[in-house]
Amino acid sequence: MVRAAVIAAVLAFAAASGVARAEEGMWTFDNFPAAAVKAKYGVTIDQPWLDRVRGAAVRLSTGCSASVVSGQGLVLTNHHCASDCIQSLSTAKLDLTRAGYSAVARRDEKACPGMQAEILISISDVTARVSNAFVGKTGRDYVRARDAEVAAVEKEACAGKEATQRCQVLTLYQGGQYKLYTYRKYADVRLVFAPEFQMAFFGGDPDNFNFPRYDLDFSFVRLYENGQPATTPAHLGWNPGAPKAGEPVFVAGNPGSTQRQLTTEQLVSLRDFALPNTLLQLSELRGRYVGYAQLGPEQARLVNHELFSIENSFKAFRGQFQTLLDDRFIAAKRTADAALKAKVAADPALARDIGDPWVEIARAQAPRAALYDAFTLVEGRAGYGSNLYAYARTLVRGAQERAKPNGERLPEFTDSRLPLVEKNLLDAEPVTPGIERLDIEFWLTKVREYLTADAPETKALLGRDSPEAIARRLTASKLADPAVRRALWTGGLAAVQASTDPMIRYVLQTDPVARVLRQRYESEVSGPTDRAAEAIARARFAAYGASVYPDATFSLRLSYGAVEGWTFNGKTVEPFTRLGGLFERATGQPPFDLPQRWLDAKGRLDLDTVFDIASSNDIIGGNSGSPLIDAQGRVVGAIFDGNIHSLGGAYGYDPVLNRAVAVSTAAITEALVKVYDNQALVKELTGG
Amino acid sequence: MVRAAVIAAVLAFAAASGVARAEEGMWTFDNFPAAAVKAKYGVTIDQPWLDRVRGAAVRLSTGCSASVVSGQGLVLTNHHCASDCIQSLSTAKLDLTRAGYSAVARRDEKACPGMQAEILISISDVTARVSNAFVGKTGRDYVRARDAEVAAVEKEACAGKEATQRCQVLTLYQGGQYKLYTYRKYADVRLVFAPEFQMAFFGGDPDNFNFPRYDLDFSFVRLYENGQPATTPAHLGWNPGAPKAGEPVFVAGNPGSTQRQLTTEQLVSLRDFALPNTLLQLSELRGRYVGYAQLGPEQARLVNHELFSIENSFKAFRGQFQTLLDDRFIAAKRTADAALKAKVAADPALARDIGDPWVEIARAQAPRAALYDAFTLVEGRAGYGSNLYAYARTLVRGAQERAKPNGERLPEFTDSRLPLVEKNLLDAEPVTPGIERLDIEFWLTKVREYLTADAPETKALLGRDSPEAIARRLTASKLADPAVRRALWTGGLAAVQASTDPMIRYVLQTDPVARVLRQRYESEVSGPTDRAAEAIARARFAAYGASVYPDATFSLRLSYGAVEGWTFNGKTVEPFTRLGGLFERATGQPPFDLPQRWLDAKGRLDLDTVFDIASSNDIIGGNSGSPLIDAQGRVVGAIFDGNIHSLGGAYGYDPVLNRAVAVSTAAITEALVKVYDNQALVKELTGG
Repeated sequence: MVRAAVIAAVLAFAAASGVARAEEGMWTFDNFPAAAVKAKYGVTIDQPWLDRVRGAAVRLSTGCSASVVSGQGLVLTNHHCASDCIQSLSTAKLDLTRAGYSAVARRDEKACPGMQAEILISISDVTARVSNAFVGKTGRDYVRARDAEVAAVEKEACAGKEATQRCQVLTLYQGGQYKLYTYRKYADVRLVFAPEFQMAFFGGDPDNFNFPRYDLDFSFVRLYENGQPATTPAHLGWNPGAPKAGEPVFVAGNPGSTQRQLTTEQLVSLRDFALPNTLLQLSELRGRYVGYAQLGPEQARLVNHELFSIENSFKAFRGQFQTLLDDRFIAAKRTADAALKAKVAADPALARDIGDPWVEIARAQAPRAALYDAFTLVEGRAGYGSNLYAYARTLVRGAQERAKPNGERLPEFTDSRLPLVEKNLLDAEPVTPGIERLDIEFWLTKVREYLTADAPETKALLGRDSPEAIARRLTASKLADPAVRRALWTGGLAAVQASTDPMIRYVLQTDPVARVLRQRYESEVSGPTDRAAEAIARARFAAYGASVYPDATFSLRLSYGAVEGWTFNGKTVEPFTRLGGLFERATGQPPFDLPQRWLDAKGRLDLDTVFDIASSNDIIGGNSGSPLIDAQGRVVGAIFDGNIHSLGGAYGYDPVLNRAVAVSTAAITEALVKVYDNQALVKELTGG
Repeated sequence: MVRAAVIAAVLAFAAASGVARAEEGMWTFDNFPAAAVKAKYGVTIDQPWLDRVRGAAVRLSTGCSASVVSGQGLVLTNHHCASDCIQSLSTAKLDLTRAGYSAVARRDEKACPGMQAEILISISDVTARVSNAFVGKTGRDYVRARDAEVAAVEKEACAGKEATQRCQVLTLYQGGQYKLYTYRKYADVRLVFAPEFQMAFFGGDPDNFNFPRYDLDFSFVRLYENGQPATTPAHLGWNPGAPKAGEPVFVAGNPGSTQRQLTTEQLVSLRDFALPNTLLQLSELRGRYVGYAQLGPEQARLVNHELFSIENSFKAFRGQFQTLLDDRFIAAKRTADAALKAKVAADPALARDIGDPWVEIARAQAPRAALYDAFTLVEGRAGYGSNLYAYARTLVRGAQERAKPNGERLPEFTDSRLPLVEKNLLDAEPVTPGIERLDIEFWLTKVREYLTADAPETKALLGRDSPEAIARRLTASKLADPAVRRALWTGGLAAVQASTDPMIRYVLQTDPVARVLRQRYESEVSGPTDRAAEAIARARFAAYGASVYPDATFSLRLSYGAVEGWTFNGKTVEPFTRLGGLFERATGQPPFDLPQRWLDAKGRLDLDTVFDIASSNDIIGGNSGSPLIDAQGRVVGAIFDGNIHSLGGAYGYDPVLNRAVAVSTAAITEALVKVYDNQALVKELTGG
């Protein structure tokens, strides 16, 4: 279903100038097409509007978006963006995932481990400085020179302000631009309110990415500083009414990743090995997690968040994969590539400057295919979700890297990144031995399966042991204890090397193989690819000017659109669902069952209240929790999903079918008032 | 790795005449290219040779091949072809899978439930008769007329001989030929000998489809008639010595299915939805089974055979999928299609006769895509392995169909098929409630996921229930008891309709949806496709004569080749492994651990004994258990696998890389003598 639509979008893109059409575009705040919005909707988006929205838009370090909705640092996001926190704060006796959570007073607001909130306060262009650093370099030298310069820029920019700011150099347009984004950061984020998981994810995996939808997928957290609610640069007004069909709406958030500007050869590689192998592995892991959940209710509780994450990723990647399997889509992409190449060829000076980066990228695909499984399994996905493994790798690599000058470290351990690395490492989070064992066993089994038993990497990771025996042995690690982690982190390399913890020993012994793979990958794949992609970006700027937007990079973007349904195969889907529909869809059987509190409240509710909203905003994973904003800059919803057609959005946006899905402030307000009886929150939101 | 090779093969096929080259070919016994063998190897394959081999070649109803190797009905096959039987005969206290089995006397030979052996005794051509029945018909009418005629032919041919014979009309060349195959059947097959699973499948899934290999994947069963060892039309001599490198060898067996003559559009459909959806589902099911196995040693035992089957299928399908993902492979197939079309176009009379079946097949791909998930999940894979569901469907459909005239029934319930249907239904086999529940729950979850919660099929199968609740309810069925099944089978429709068994009720209620899907699929997909494929087959005969072989159809074929390794990426793999290598590869950790009996026997063994053998014979799944035969017609091994390159063999054979893998009679003999101390078997085999 997704495919034809995306093809139409890509063909249109290829045929036209390469300029975004209609509602397409995840625009940076320094290049928002306000004139186009004015022309289409008659709405003026001026600098004060942009500044206020930017100052209220929140990026969560857990991979989500959010918005400040009160003067006391109250933040609206999705339930599924806080569900890791909610699960971490739960116990066998008090399951907040099941029961929901409502802080009665400020002191009941509970710190979310590992969660940091960031608000963008400035953007500056550092393209020239970063580019100068790598000029003339290739392969791994290119990567190292670039990364060193980025580390230096980030460190200098935040010097002396590290406690309250984060500086990050973002690579935009596949290297066509380097921008320094400076964030106000809030490392103390606390849970204020969450509905029951059952309500937040009503319909479960079967309804995920579908619409009509009936999910109350929201939660509130609060930013703290020095133990007090934080004052943020701005906050959004709360509009408890629902927008109308056709009304213009905006989404400010952090779309995670799109691949719209990749060359055809890169997409073919995604189709031929990256996506299928990822999906097949996720699928088996999903089965193993389902098996774990069926061991009993407590195991089901413990695995709930991870299982949701796996199923959500699986469905999203599967939609992407189906798009790439369509030969017409690939053909359309080839046409788009050819159009840009023709423009370059028509300009001799540009052609001399650009060379043939398409061929360079095509050439990198063979080593990419050869290295893909080893690189992903031994480096990228090492440990396959095991927290103990991740802690150990952070401790081992962190100790090794911190001993080096800032510019020579792996990028994830440069000075500008260390505060968040530390927070993630040292915050207390529950660790479940059974799940750890499952993860490690699965990981090592897949290493052996995909690389074969005789591969040197397999031998390095397994020796003469079985995955089962190693997983048993490593799960005896004491790294679940934050004090143990802190001692090793502060003790540095000497402490790590002296450690007898089995997981630390294992990583010390096996990590060199992963580092070698990473270096090879940088030399043969990412170095040549990044360098060529930067040339293609220059070609694109020369051909199409600044009227293009960069692929998503989990950085702040603004998209515009309208409250709008769609028509597919002759069937029209309205842009709204209403509370009454929830009760009609409920069967009493999971995942279509309702909490008793909701069944009891039915008579009190206005069943005509708008529940979930479809809109034509261009969004993707990472936008979860983003505010849906009306023309007046007030929040009217929180994005939590896209429709099934939106899954092809990774490769192209289709204005006819691609829809974002949000939970309305109207439904949230109705629920807070009539179901959860939380007048304090309503008062804070409405300022009433 | 597989891909480049297969492309070379397909390109060669396209460029040349369409005639099989070198060792390519799964030849029927009535069209074996003896002259080519004579020319290449100087070996004479005459009619007596063919007759003797055919008379000793066994098809097992469990999807495998085998051969008679003594005058007392002793049959050599793979361990994995008898492992379902071995597991069925095991209990928590006596695990024959783990311990192996050796019948001390004839009375210890144990009947294998559901296993029937069949030996081909004659082939006759019924193409004209079947074709006349459907001439001028289309869609579902075409399917019904054809199937009715097939049912009539089969019934007439075996009339009065049903107790000892099975008559089957085989569709060859995608409908280009209909041949009546008459088999001598043996419904009483008993287990004689099996080594430990650990030895049979040493290296487990990681080593599956790899070579060098060290698997003792054999077992012996015996055919019985009237309680006595059966006399078969022929048997093969046992050569306890290993063949030499380069020596010509033959494989007589029943390759299950190849897709070498499909059109490009059909292959693209396999690539775009059939294979990925199959693989993704298998992958999750695998994870769930692994989870079940980890519940405890008894659960691991109970699930062992099924988990092997899933992992084996997964690896095979994945290899096929990777082949189809290569655009060069698809392009080569298009070239091959175009070459045949050009030949048709060059012959006006032929062109008038043939029409454009390629377009007809292309047109059937859209409904195929639209129906695929519903058809496979609700009809083809209904129950997803649940024995209780399968019993119930056989009982419900069997009762409904037997009430109709023979020619109007579903093909699987025509008179010629009923004896085997009955045997499978009524033989006692253990049923494990936990696995039944897993299967049904998985099945219904995937129905809901792939078809969506709102699809009419999902509503028909789930109502307002959850998959979990239905699985719980249905597992209370009493159909695990063979007496209950027998009563319902003999009671017919009245008994079935009166049954209160929850599984019978469920199938009675939901089966109409499946039947409707099947009819739609026949009307819109398989009817038009089969009719067009028959026209393409006629085109191929006209263009290339009889020098082509039909795609595999789990019917008896003979392939020739030589004992031969291969060279890939500059690395040469020898065609033999030896017993000594087994001990070198053993780590002591599963699946690379050895039974104590083997560790103890090491000093007694001739470690130079040839263990496993690679040869260039063209084989595929279904050939498992096939005898590897020397020029003198003596068995020298049992095929149990192919190398990794052979997985693309579904779509094309590559003489450079595609290799069959067999366990040698030399290793079997050495093991029987020195490890298992089974002199009686050795004596029977060698006639000594």
